[in-house]
Parts: sequence; structure tokens; C-alpha cells
Amino acid sequence: MKKPRLMTPGPANVPEDVLLDLARPVIHHRTAEVKQAIAEVTEGLKQVFRTQHDVLILTASGTAAMEAAAVNTVPRGSKAIVLNAGWFAQRWLKVCQAYGINAVSLDFEWGQPVDPARVEQALAEHPDAVAVMGTLSETSTGTGHPVAEIGQIVARTPALFAVDGISGVGAMECHTDDWGIDLLCVGSQKALMLPPGLAFVSVSPKAWARIDAYPNPPCYYLDLKAARKKMADFDTPYTPAHTLILALRTALKRILAEGIEHVWARHRRMSEACQAGVTALGLELFSARPAEGLTAFRVPEGLKDSDIRGRLEQKFGITTIGGQDKLKGKIVRIGHMGYTDELDVIAGLAALEMVLDELGYDVEPGVAVAAAQRVLLNRNVTAAV
Amino acid sequence: MKKPRLMTPGPANVPEDVLLDLARPVIHHRTAEVKQAIAEVTEGLKQVFRTQHDVLILTASGTAAMEAAAVNTVPRGSKAIVLNAGWFAQRWLKVCQAYGINAVSLDFEWGQPVDPARVEQALAEHPDAVAVMGTLSETSTGTGHPVAEIGQIVARTPALFAVDGISGVGAMECHTDDWGIDLLCVGSQKALMLPPGLAFVSVSPKAWARIDAYPNPPCYYLDLKAARKKMADFDTPYTPAHTLILALRTALKRILAEGIEHVWARHRRMSEACQAGVTALGLELFSARPAEGLTAFRVPEGLKDSDIRGRLEQKFGITTIGGQDKLKGKIVRIGHMGYTDELDVIAGLAALEMVLDELGYDVEPGVAVAAAQRVLLNRNVTAAV
Repeated sequence: MKKPRLMTPGPANVPEDVLLDLARPVIHHRTAEVKQAIAEVTEGLKQVFRTQHDVLILTASGTAAMEAAAVNTVPRGSKAIVLNAGWFAQRWLKVCQAYGINAVSLDFEWGQPVDPARVEQALAEHPDAVAVMGTLSETSTGTGHPVAEIGQIVARTPALFAVDGISGVGAMECHTDDWGIDLLCVGSQKALMLPPGLAFVSVSPKAWARIDAYPNPPCYYLDLKAARKKMADFDTPYTPAHTLILALRTALKRILAEGIEHVWARHRRMSEACQAGVTALGLELFSARPAEGLTAFRVPEGLKDSDIRGRLEQKFGITTIGGQDKLKGKIVRIGHMGYTDELDVIAGLAALEMVLDELGYDVEPGVAVAAAQRVLLNRNVTAAV
Repeated sequence: MKKPRLMTPGPANVPEDVLLDLARPVIHHRTAEVKQAIAEVTEGLKQVFRTQHDVLILTASGTAAMEAAAVNTVPRGSKAIVLNAGWFAQRWLKVCQAYGINAVSLDFEWGQPVDPARVEQALAEHPDAVAVMGTLSETSTGTGHPVAEIGQIVARTPALFAVDGISGVGAMECHTDDWGIDLLCVGSQKALMLPPGLAFVSVSPKAWARIDAYPNPPCYYLDLKAARKKMADFDTPYTPAHTLILALRTALKRILAEGIEHVWARHRRMSEACQAGVTALGLELFSARPAEGLTAFRVPEGLKDSDIRGRLEQKFGITTIGGQDKLKGKIVRIGHMGYTDELDVIAGLAALEMVLDELGYDVEPGVAVAAAQRVLLNRNVTAAV
């Protein structure tokens, strides 16, 4: 028997009760029941995002939330500063390019965190920047960026701070309002424990002021003003993927029952345990500041990522993911976000030990597992829920 | 006991096996299994749409497919002719407005079909029109438009023919290639028997030529060139709602096993039976050329649509929908599309009889049911599957 185990940084595992919600007969989307669900999930998302402001629901992938954040706030020819430290940060550049936004790319080595001092300097050099576009967790490198520090810097300027929190939010601490995030972009299929199909954007009053001062942004489906107008009545401008919204209610109940601080702590424990295990195997972590929803390690000399990942899949049913773009073949990424617990990480490490051993890599069986256990021992592993 | 019966023109009922697909554990979206599903559903959609050309999958509502059709083909300031005969046709105008497209609105009375002669005249008056934007089934009025005739007219000009087939395709005959439709926009939650969340656009070679000649359309998420590039390898540019794609495979298997001609015939039978029943009750059909996925009738003098629809819901669990915009309170729309059979229509008519009787409307019990039965008798009601 090979039991499938999804260990990718999105899509991530979805709880069984959330999946069963998706098998319920379809109801109409313009009903009191769906409005009630939209009201509840909006409130729940606000708690998870730590915002008092608006959270809008889009029926789309997370990329569309990023595009909405850009296109509703930055006119053609205006300037945006992109904190470019990975494949997904580059998506901000591509969105800017599509709309003729003058993007100033602050380039950082992949795997290195964004340096807030450079952001401060760039804002001083470009006082006309309308937005700073960054990332909470760069999925392509497994790097968490210092969004709190960057947010404080951006908040002192007229620029908006738009953050791709797609693989970060729910896995890593994120205080949207306190950190000065004006537009937080999130996807459903990561730590929020749903399949893909929904995206969310939080919008601060500072962002709304900018959006309201921009009369005709080139968008229709992604028009945030249209979404705000309908959201006043817990509705959406176009047919929403409402079966996902109904399932999201169940997923959020789980997150809020566990407590978002406990959810963050669990992800911290899982990432530290995974990092410890990987390191104990003599593998090198790729990121200088690891994100908490995934762990990326360099493929060791003499081995192929396709062999490691292929054997994990074939022998143990574990799906991981490799590197993208210039990291193709160079790293392996193990996701541990959403509906994942500490023992899933232990299981993944045990499999990794066996696979590496078979591939001729020098492994002392149990070394990664033991290292992870040492991280977990004496910590409150069993959460309330 | 009140058994829920969804009789709205989208979302429509989803077969039980398709729903159960949605409850399966989530797998990664960049896998051979998902590529295989994308390949299969693309092939199946081509058969349903009757096209040999490209069909692209968007993770979004049908509106986004319409926006993609417009924004990828018609530059700002260029001209488009909109066949404006209802609330959803107006969406084409709104999309054009958002992008500075010069929309020539050919206005038709709601409930009346588009007159092909006026389209021909408009194209003669506006030889610079880049596109004609129309509707197969106008959901707001329950009207089917003569898309075959219009398509032949548009095909003789350089203009592209973009058709909102969201509530029509799968319910009504539609031959994309033979009818000269260059861009067919479809949503998942209607006759394709899925929940909302996916949209599809077929693209003809004539449309591709136009798209390829337009270097930088103002779009990113909805960039059809990006979708084509990835589709060459049965992939998508951004995270797709792949659990819906996997479920779509099952829904399409059902459609193709029944045979698309049989599916169309079933919808024709259901619409004719519903029209006969409604008419037998002395109710007036709203549309002069009824669509086949829904039946719209005028609320009779002295009654309120909210009473009719409310009682259908409260007493019998039947969800119908009222009028939109200027038709609010004036019509009731009964959907019979997708996973719906003749006996569902009969049940709906029986309930309508009882509700109208209770509301003091003069009803002879069984008259609508009998009229529907007379339509169905001597016709091949039982399909092969």
C-alpha cells in the first residue's frame, strides 16, 4: 500500500470535513445562506489576517489578487518598487509590465531576505513611488521576508504596501494592520486549507483613498470598487465559487478553534523540526531566513532532485516539489502548511532518510527524525484542537 | 420533509459522482495526473463546443472569460458592436467601458431576439468594428438568440464574433466552428454540471490572428497568449482550480456518454414541456424566442413574484430566480439545465400549480403537468444514458 501524502507548499492538504462540504449539493449563490457564509468567512479572514479593514473575495487564483492590488492602485506610467527576491516576487514585475507600470526592481539574491534598509533607501530615491510590492513567504526559495520592518518603513511614505501573502498567510505570523500592509493578497489553497479557486485581498483605508482617487482603472472582473460595493451586502459582483466559500467556513472554524497564534506556533514548530532534520542529514538549507510553511534544501553534490523526489513519490507516496526557473534541479522543497501536523513532518523526514540512503548518500537512520524530535520535545506539540 | 430542488439557470444541479470527485484528497496541480485531466477535459470541451480549435481554461467566473475575449482582441479606442438585449449582454458594454473600447450598442427589447438584419446593417455602417459581442442564451430574459445566423454575417467581415455562451452551451445547440464563433465564453456552473469556479474560452484561428497582432493587451491573469503557451503542455499559467478540472472530467464523460446531440434534445424537450405547462396555466412566457436552459414567465396580474418563488421554496424546497434590473418583480425564471431531467420539470410544474392555487390564482390541478406530458409523450424521453 502507498498512502498519498501531499507535502508541497500549496496546494496543501485539505481537512476531511472541508472536502465533504465540497460534496454537498449545490445551492444558489444569491441566497441568505450564502450571504451568511460570506459574512462569516469575511469575519474569519479578518481575524486570520489580523485586519479590521475590508477583505474582498475573488473567484480566481492568488495571482489575480496581486493583479487586482496593482491595477486598482497604480496608473500606467506611475512608479512601483518591487522587492524582487524570487520567482513569485517577479510576478509583481510581470503584472507591472502588462499594465505599463514603471517598476523599480530591487533585486536580492534568491534565498536571501529583503533588506529593509534598501527599501528605505529606494523610497527616498523614488518619493513618487505609488506602491511597494513585496512577499511574505517566497514560495520559490522558501524564504520569509521581514514584512513587519518593511511595512513600518513604507507606512511613513505615501506609498502603499502590497504583499503577496499567498503561501505565507496562515502559516506565518502576519499582522496586516499593525505591520502597515495596505493590500494583502492570499490564495485559498495553502495554509487556509482549501483547494485552489478563491483569492482574497485586504484593503486598508490608505489603499481605498488611493483607489477612490483613481477613477477608471483598466479592470473589470478585478475591480475592487465593484467588489467593495457588493461586499457591503455580503455579495459579489460576479458568480462566486460559493461552494468553496461554504467550505472555507469550515476551514476557518478549525483555524479559529485552534487559535491563529497556535496555528502560527504549529507552523513554526514544524518548520524548525524540518530544518533540524534536514540539517542533521548534512543537507544545506537553501534560505538564509526560512519561511515557515515550507523547507527548501539544496540537492547534495552527486544526487539529482528528480531521484530524491521521484523515490519519495514512488516508494512513499510523498509529493514534494523541486526548484523553479534558475533553481530547477538545485533544490527540493517540502511543504508543511495548512492541514499538516508535526508527525507528518517526522514521517516525511523518515522517508527522506531512507530515500537518501538508497541513493547512496551517507545516512545514519533516524538522525533526521531524532533531530526533529529534539525540537519538538519540551514544546507544546498537542494544541487545544 | 422538504427535499431541496435547485431550479435556477445556474448554478445548476451537479451529479453526485461529480460532487464526490470534489471530496477526494487534493493532489498537486503540476502532476502527470492533472495534465492528463487537462488534456481530456480540453478534448471533451471541444466536442461539446463543436470546435476543432483551442479551448482555454480560466480559474474564474464566466465574466472573466468575456473580459478575456474583449481585452485580448480589441484595443482601447477601437470599436466593438454589442448586441444588447438583456442584463448579461450589457456586461459586454461594461467590459468595453472599463477598457476604453468604443462600444456601439445595438439595443433590442428585453425578451426579443437579436435581429440578424440589424447586425448586418451595423457591420456595414461600422466596417472598422473589431468585434461583435453577443449572447447565445440571455439568462436574464430566458431568450435564445439566432447565433448561427449572426455568425454567418460576422464571418463575412473582418470582425470577430465573441459569444457569451455561459448559460447556453451544453443546453442549446451550439456549433462554434460552423457558426463562425471566434470566441466562445462558457462557465462551469451551468449545463456543464459543475460548481462555479472555472471558465472556458474557445479561440478560432481568426481570433488568434487578431490576438497575435495586438502586442501588449492590458491584461495579465486573463492573457490568452499566456494560456495558449501553457496549454501546449496541458498546463496553466497560474494555479488552476484543478479539483474542479478533475471533476469536470467526470461531468464531461456523462455528457459525452449521453451524446451532446441527445443532451441538446433533452434540454429542448424540457424547455418545450416547461413552456407548455406554464402556458397551460394561462401564464405568459416572457421571451419571444425562449432559450432552452430556462423558462421565464411574467408574474400574473395581482400576484407577487416573491410570493410565488417564496412558496415554491418554503413548501417544496424549489429554488427559482426572479427578474434582474428592470425585470425585478416582473418575471419568474425556472432553470432546467445540466443535471436535470424531464421529471424534474414535471415536479416543478406540479409545485407551481399548487402554489398558484394557494395564492388564489385560478388553477385546474394537473393542467400544467398534463400539458408537459403531452409534449413528452411520443418523444424519446429515455436517453441512452
